[in-house]
Amino acid sequence: MCLAAVVEPGHRAVGEAVAEFGAEAVWAGLAAAGGSSPLERRAQTIVPEDLVAHTRVAGQRFVIPGDEEWPAGMSGLAECEPVQQLGGGPLGLWVSGAGRLGELTAKAVAIVGSRASTAYGDRVAADFAAELSEAGRTVVSGGAYGIDAAAHRGALAGRTPTVAVQAGGLDQPYPSGHAKLFSRIAEAGVVVGELAPGEHPTRVRFLARNRLIAAMSEGTVMVEAAARSGARNTVTWANALRRLVMAVPGPVTSANSVTPHRLIREAEATLVSSPAEVLELLSPLGGDFRQPRGEHRPTDDLAADELRLFEAIPARGALSAGELALKAGLAMPTCLALLSRLAEQGFISQDAESNWRLPARLRKDRRASE
Amino acid sequence: MCLAAVVEPGHRAVGEAVAEFGAEAVWAGLAAAGGSSPLERRAQTIVPEDLVAHTRVAGQRFVIPGDEEWPAGMSGLAECEPVQQLGGGPLGLWVSGAGRLGELTAKAVAIVGSRASTAYGDRVAADFAAELSEAGRTVVSGGAYGIDAAAHRGALAGRTPTVAVQAGGLDQPYPSGHAKLFSRIAEAGVVVGELAPGEHPTRVRFLARNRLIAAMSEGTVMVEAAARSGARNTVTWANALRRLVMAVPGPVTSANSVTPHRLIREAEATLVSSPAEVLELLSPLGGDFRQPRGEHRPTDDLAADELRLFEAIPARGALSAGELALKAGLAMPTCLALLSRLAEQGFISQDAESNWRLPARLRKDRRASE
Repeated sequence: MCLAAVVEPGHRAVGEAVAEFGAEAVWAGLAAAGGSSPLERRAQTIVPEDLVAHTRVAGQRFVIPGDEEWPAGMSGLAECEPVQQLGGGPLGLWVSGAGRLGELTAKAVAIVGSRASTAYGDRVAADFAAELSEAGRTVVSGGAYGIDAAAHRGALAGRTPTVAVQAGGLDQPYPSGHAKLFSRIAEAGVVVGELAPGEHPTRVRFLARNRLIAAMSEGTVMVEAAARSGARNTVTWANALRRLVMAVPGPVTSANSVTPHRLIREAEATLVSSPAEVLELLSPLGGDFRQPRGEHRPTDDLAADELRLFEAIPARGALSAGELALKAGLAMPTCLALLSRLAEQGFISQDAESNWRLPARLRKDRRASE
Repeated sequence: MCLAAVVEPGHRAVGEAVAEFGAEAVWAGLAAAGGSSPLERRAQTIVPEDLVAHTRVAGQRFVIPGDEEWPAGMSGLAECEPVQQLGGGPLGLWVSGAGRLGELTAKAVAIVGSRASTAYGDRVAADFAAELSEAGRTVVSGGAYGIDAAAHRGALAGRTPTVAVQAGGLDQPYPSGHAKLFSRIAEAGVVVGELAPGEHPTRVRFLARNRLIAAMSEGTVMVEAAARSGARNTVTWANALRRLVMAVPGPVTSANSVTPHRLIREAEATLVSSPAEVLELLSPLGGDFRQPRGEHRPTDDLAADELRLFEAIPARGALSAGELALKAGLAMPTCLALLSRLAEQGFISQDAESNWRLPARLRKDRRASE
């Protein structure tokens, strides 16, 4: 907790040192008298007992990797490429609220976007959030004005608590105009951040905060953002983490849809026009955090002929069983048996004409891996 | 002309017979006394001189493959897979108007969409058409109410004539409420169709007409269409012809944007949010009709190491020269020399960070071919 209180979020060197030597050794080194770097001098001002008391008095708790409340998705940050020099998982998180962070983020979707949103964007964010919450998904956002607030409010109308990720200490709600919203969120959900009580957001802290939003969510939906927008940074993190990135289109005449359109156009995001489409892209049970390249993928468990058949399914369009048998070099009865086995496992689906295709969820991966 | 006057558009068997035996032999066979099939009986009613006179009196001309006015893009229909049992190029085209069809369609873009369009769709269609026309592109559409009319009107405001493709005889303007619009179009542009004077549109003739719109255009832009829309069929043709397919997004709350969104989501169309983006996707000089698989592609002329380097450029994102040298297995000086050669030929472009990427125009092909 002491280390987390003095190190700036996303500080990769400290994160790596902790991974190698452990937080206690790194803290002992920093706090030892005599060091004169800014970080060492800052460490020397910390009174551990005061920090613990301050956290408790502010109604917060401090969770660290390995705790039951620790979000599983955070592990992705360890191997993820840095974004704007920031990276690595948080050393710990200050949490307040009645929700259990680990549980809530096991099936979480981020909804992000512009502060200066339009009525259209607010409506879409609220609609999407309400339906996702109703469907049992936790909506994660940053608590800002505009799209963030619309998403939290929409989620509060559904049956699943929502999570607000702050860029400063939780006792310094930002924006302060949302203090009541954060209280509402904390009734059943969680307000969380990696800054100690008393700390205020800075530009870099906002950027570091965005990686937490992306990392604790299975996917990120961008609703509205102008050409230059902080929400773009969250999407960059989600892509670096190989999470699902979705974007909601809007009128081409709206400056606030420029970034969603660009993301879709450049294949950095999949277009979603309804909450149902978001749910279709997410894994059915949630918590299926995309693994960094080289790690275990679901298809690793397929037998060779199943894999060959699966790979014969085109990235777009559909093929008949006969065409697939030919393409995969399989006898028709074998092909039919394997097709139903793949379908049972959710790798493929059948369309209205009984042809076989990839489920929308897997199509992006297929295109990316091709 | 006689054959074209009796055969229904998109009739593949007749098209194939003409390709094998020539139009004159097929016509002679059909028109010979004694045959009793509907087609033969119809052929026996034709008086060639009357048809010629009727065409001339109606202010039309009849053009056939090989004529200077014949649109180069039509050749794609010969090898294209049938759509809803229809296929093959037209036997000939009735044309009216001051424009030269071959010349106009050498740099043509189709703009298609819903009859029951919204004010948003009409505005976008008109804006796109006006800017494309101003940039020297011929806007092709179907002359219908809604998006078609907005596109033609927008194009009339620009400096390039527009082309309206009809599903019936040109002397039977459809819809009749657009008779004046067709006259305006014909002043500098062209009204064209494959039906003889006097013929009226039917459902099948609309479907066959759509293949002409797709075939005479380098790309097709869908502006608005509800879940079930005839404009979807034009896009199917454009995809079957391996032409560029583009779609304009809109509010997700609009039923008229359902089909553009679905096309983008399923990677059947590239999202375009401005006329500039359409121009960026089209080939710089127009007339670069996509070739069916197996035919000559621009990359066929690249040397082996150029091709290897070109193929090292990712479908999305960008790489530095160093990364590319590594990926393509080239020494750095060679890599730099080849990169600038590829850039000169328009195969690659450099982004703001000096990294190398595919131009938007080539990205879809890369993803499709991967």
